[in-house]
Amino acid sequence: MILEAVLLNIKIGLLNDFEASFNKASRIISSTNGYLSHELHKCLELEGKYLLLIKWETLEAHTVGFRSSPEYQEWRKLLHHFYEPFPTVEHFEKVELDY
Amino acid sequence: MILEAVLLNIKIGLLNDFEASFNKASRIISSTNGYLSHELHKCLELEGKYLLLIKWETLEAHTVGFRSSPEYQEWRKLLHHFYEPFPTVEHFEKVELDY
Repeated sequence: MILEAVLLNIKIGLLNDFEASFNKASRIISSTNGYLSHELHKCLELEGKYLLLIKWETLEAHTVGFRSSPEYQEWRKLLHHFYEPFPTVEHFEKVELDY
Repeated sequence: MILEAVLLNIKIGLLNDFEASFNKASRIISSTNGYLSHELHKCLELEGKYLLLIKWETLEAHTVGFRSSPEYQEWRKLLHHFYEPFPTVEHFEKVELDY
Protein backbone atom coordinates (compact mmCIF):
# COMPACT_ATOMS: atom_id res chain seq x y z
CA MET A 1 0.00 0.00 0.00
CA ILE A 2 1.21 3.48 -0.93
CA LEU A 3 -0.27 6.65 0.54
CA GLU A 4 -0.47 9.69 -1.72
CA ALA A 5 -0.68 12.84 0.41
CA VAL A 6 -1.31 16.31 -0.97
CA LEU A 7 -1.77 19.59 0.88
CA LEU A 8 -4.16 21.69 -1.19
CA ASN A 9 -4.61 25.44 -0.93
CA ILE A 10 -7.95 26.41 -2.44
CA LYS A 11 -8.81 29.91 -3.61
CA ILE A 12 -10.85 31.62 -0.88
CA GLY A 13 -14.42 32.18 -2.02
CA LEU A 14 -14.44 28.93 -3.97
CA LEU A 15 -14.43 26.47 -1.09
CA ASN A 16 -18.02 25.28 -1.55
CA ASP A 17 -17.52 24.92 -5.31
CA PHE A 18 -14.32 23.01 -4.71
CA GLU A 19 -16.00 20.58 -2.30
CA ALA A 20 -18.85 19.98 -4.78
CA SER A 21 -16.39 19.37 -7.62
CA PHE A 22 -14.30 17.13 -5.41
CA ASN A 23 -17.38 15.06 -4.71
CA LYS A 24 -17.85 14.52 -8.47
CA ALA A 25 -14.15 13.84 -8.95
CA SER A 26 -14.34 11.18 -6.24
CA ARG A 27 -16.32 9.02 -8.63
CA ILE A 28 -13.44 9.18 -11.12
CA ILE A 29 -10.62 8.36 -8.76
CA SER A 30 -12.47 5.59 -6.96
CA SER A 31 -13.01 3.65 -10.18
CA THR A 32 -9.32 3.69 -11.14
CA ASN A 33 -7.31 0.45 -11.21
CA GLY A 34 -5.20 0.06 -8.09
CA TYR A 35 -7.21 2.62 -6.07
CA LEU A 36 -7.89 1.53 -2.49
CA SER A 37 -9.51 4.48 -0.66
CA HIS A 38 -9.42 8.25 -0.31
CA GLU A 39 -10.29 10.94 2.21
CA LEU A 40 -10.47 14.71 2.01
CA HIS A 41 -9.83 16.69 5.22
CA LYS A 42 -10.34 20.41 5.83
CA CYS A 43 -7.87 22.32 8.01
CA LEU A 44 -9.20 23.87 11.22
CA GLU A 45 -6.38 26.40 11.55
CA LEU A 46 -6.09 27.77 8.01
CA GLU A 47 -9.03 28.60 5.75
CA GLY A 48 -8.74 27.09 2.29
CA LYS A 49 -6.24 24.41 3.30
CA TYR A 50 -7.13 20.74 2.75
CA LEU A 51 -5.31 17.45 3.07
CA LEU A 52 -6.05 14.84 0.44
CA LEU A 53 -5.08 11.27 1.29
CA ILE A 54 -5.36 8.53 -1.32
CA LYS A 55 -4.33 4.94 -0.79
CA TRP A 56 -3.08 2.98 -3.82
CA GLU A 57 -2.03 -0.63 -4.24
CA THR A 58 1.27 0.48 -5.80
CA LEU A 59 3.08 3.73 -6.62
CA GLU A 60 2.63 3.06 -10.35
CA ALA A 61 -1.15 2.73 -10.02
CA HIS A 62 -1.07 6.48 -9.40
CA THR A 63 1.97 7.78 -11.26
CA VAL A 64 1.55 5.68 -14.40
CA GLY A 65 -1.95 4.18 -14.43
CA PHE A 66 -4.05 7.10 -13.25
CA ARG A 67 -1.95 9.95 -14.64
CA SER A 68 -1.88 8.52 -18.16
CA SER A 69 -5.60 7.71 -18.21
CA PRO A 70 -8.36 9.71 -19.95
CA GLU A 71 -10.01 9.93 -16.51
CA TYR A 72 -7.10 12.01 -15.24
CA GLN A 73 -7.97 14.69 -17.80
CA GLU A 74 -11.50 14.84 -16.33
CA TRP A 75 -10.07 14.99 -12.81
CA ARG A 76 -7.84 17.92 -13.86
CA LYS A 77 -10.74 19.78 -15.46
CA LEU A 78 -12.82 19.39 -12.33
CA LEU A 79 -10.16 20.36 -9.81
CA HIS A 80 -6.99 22.03 -11.00
CA HIS A 81 -8.40 25.57 -11.35
CA PHE A 82 -9.20 25.67 -7.61
CA TYR A 83 -5.57 25.30 -6.55
CA GLU A 84 -3.34 28.26 -5.69
CA PRO A 85 -0.49 27.49 -5.75
CA PHE A 86 -0.41 24.20 -7.62
CA PRO A 87 0.21 21.51 -5.02
CA THR A 88 3.14 19.17 -4.53
CA VAL A 89 2.20 15.49 -4.54
CA GLU A 90 4.16 13.13 -2.33
CA HIS A 91 3.99 9.38 -1.74
CA PHE A 92 4.57 7.53 1.50
CA GLU A 93 4.89 3.97 2.70
CA LYS A 94 3.59 2.96 6.10
CA VAL A 95 6.12 2.34 8.87
CA GLU A 96 5.12 -0.90 10.56
CA LEU A 97 4.79 -0.48 14.32
CA ASP A 98 4.78 -3.37 16.79
CA TYR A 99 4.61 -1.53 20.12
CA MET B 1 -13.28 12.77 14.65
CA ILE B 2 -10.35 15.15 14.24
CA LEU B 3 -7.24 14.29 12.22
CA GLU B 4 -3.93 15.63 13.47
CA ALA B 5 -1.43 15.72 10.59
CA VAL B 6 2.24 16.57 10.98
CA LEU B 7 5.00 16.54 8.39
CA LEU B 8 8.20 15.58 10.18
CA ASN B 9 11.73 16.17 8.93
CA ILE B 10 14.11 13.86 10.75
CA LYS B 11 17.86 14.44 10.99
CA ILE B 12 19.57 12.27 8.37
CA GLY B 13 21.59 9.52 10.01
CA LEU B 14 19.06 9.12 12.80
CA LEU B 15 16.20 7.56 10.84
CA ASN B 16 16.50 4.10 12.37
CA ASP B 17 16.78 5.56 15.87
CA PHE B 18 13.76 7.74 15.21
CA GLU B 19 11.65 4.80 14.05
CA ALA B 20 12.64 2.76 17.13
CA SER B 21 11.80 5.69 19.43
CA PHE B 22 8.55 6.29 17.61
CA ASN B 23 7.60 2.68 18.21
CA LYS B 24 8.08 3.21 21.97
CA ALA B 25 6.25 6.52 21.85
CA SER B 26 3.32 4.78 20.16
CA ARG B 27 2.55 3.08 23.44
CA ILE B 28 2.21 6.48 25.11
CA ILE B 29 -0.04 8.11 22.56
CA SER B 30 -2.28 5.09 22.09
CA SER B 31 -3.18 4.98 25.78
CA THR B 32 -4.27 8.64 25.88
CA ASN B 33 -7.92 9.56 26.50
CA GLY B 34 -9.67 10.45 23.26
CA TYR B 35 -7.07 8.77 21.04
CA LEU B 36 -8.56 6.76 18.16
CA SER B 37 -5.67 5.60 15.92
CA HIS B 38 -2.35 6.67 14.46
CA GLU B 39 -0.12 5.89 11.50
CA LEU B 40 3.44 6.87 10.60
CA HIS B 41 4.33 7.07 6.91
CA LYS B 42 7.76 7.50 5.32
CA CYS B 43 8.16 9.65 2.21
CA LEU B 44 9.36 7.94 -0.97
CA GLU B 45 10.61 11.13 -2.62
CA LEU B 46 12.49 12.86 0.21
CA GLU B 47 14.77 11.09 2.68
CA GLY B 48 14.02 11.95 6.29
CA LYS B 49 10.47 13.14 5.64
CA TYR B 50 7.58 11.44 7.43
CA LEU B 51 3.86 12.05 7.72
CA LEU B 52 2.30 11.41 11.12
CA LEU B 53 -1.47 11.01 11.17
CA ILE B 54 -3.32 10.73 14.48
CA LYS B 55 -7.09 10.47 14.83
CA TRP B 56 -8.67 11.95 17.97
CA GLU B 57 -12.25 11.98 19.22
CA THR B 58 -12.08 15.77 19.64
CA LEU B 59 -9.59 18.61 19.07
CA GLU B 60 -9.26 19.12 22.83
CA ALA B 61 -8.30 15.49 23.41
CA HIS B 62 -5.03 16.46 21.70
CA THR B 63 -4.55 20.16 22.42
CA VAL B 64 -5.66 20.10 26.07
CA GLY B 65 -5.76 16.48 27.26
CA PHE B 66 -2.59 15.07 25.73
CA ARG B 67 -0.46 18.20 25.74
CA SER B 68 -1.06 18.90 29.44
CA SER B 69 -0.46 15.30 30.50
CA PRO B 70 2.72 13.87 32.10
CA GLU B 71 2.78 11.41 29.18
CA TYR B 72 3.38 14.30 26.76
CA GLN B 73 6.67 15.03 28.54
CA GLU B 74 7.74 11.43 27.87
CA TRP B 75 6.64 11.72 24.24
CA ARG B 76 8.74 14.89 23.88
CA LYS B 77 11.81 13.28 25.44
CA LEU B 78 11.54 10.33 23.07
CA LEU B 79 10.94 12.28 19.87
CA HIS B 80 11.57 16.01 19.82
CA HIS B 81 15.36 15.85 19.39
CA PHE B 82 14.96 14.05 16.04
CA TYR B 83 13.10 16.94 14.39
CA GLU B 84 14.84 19.57 12.27
CA PRO B 85 13.13 21.96 11.93
CA PHE B 86 10.51 21.64 14.65
CA PRO B 87 7.28 20.65 12.89
CA THR B 88 4.00 22.50 12.52
CA VAL B 89 0.99 20.59 13.82
CA GLU B 90 -2.33 21.03 12.05
CA HIS B 91 -5.80 19.62 12.65
CA PHE B 92 -8.37 18.65 10.07
CA GLU B 93 -11.99 17.55 9.94
CA LYS B 94 -13.16 15.07 7.34
CA VAL B 95 -15.19 16.37 4.42
CA GLU B 96 -18.16 14.04 4.02
CA LEU B 97 -18.46 12.73 0.46
CA ASP B 98 -21.60 11.17 -1.00
CA TYR B 99 -20.54 10.57 -4.62
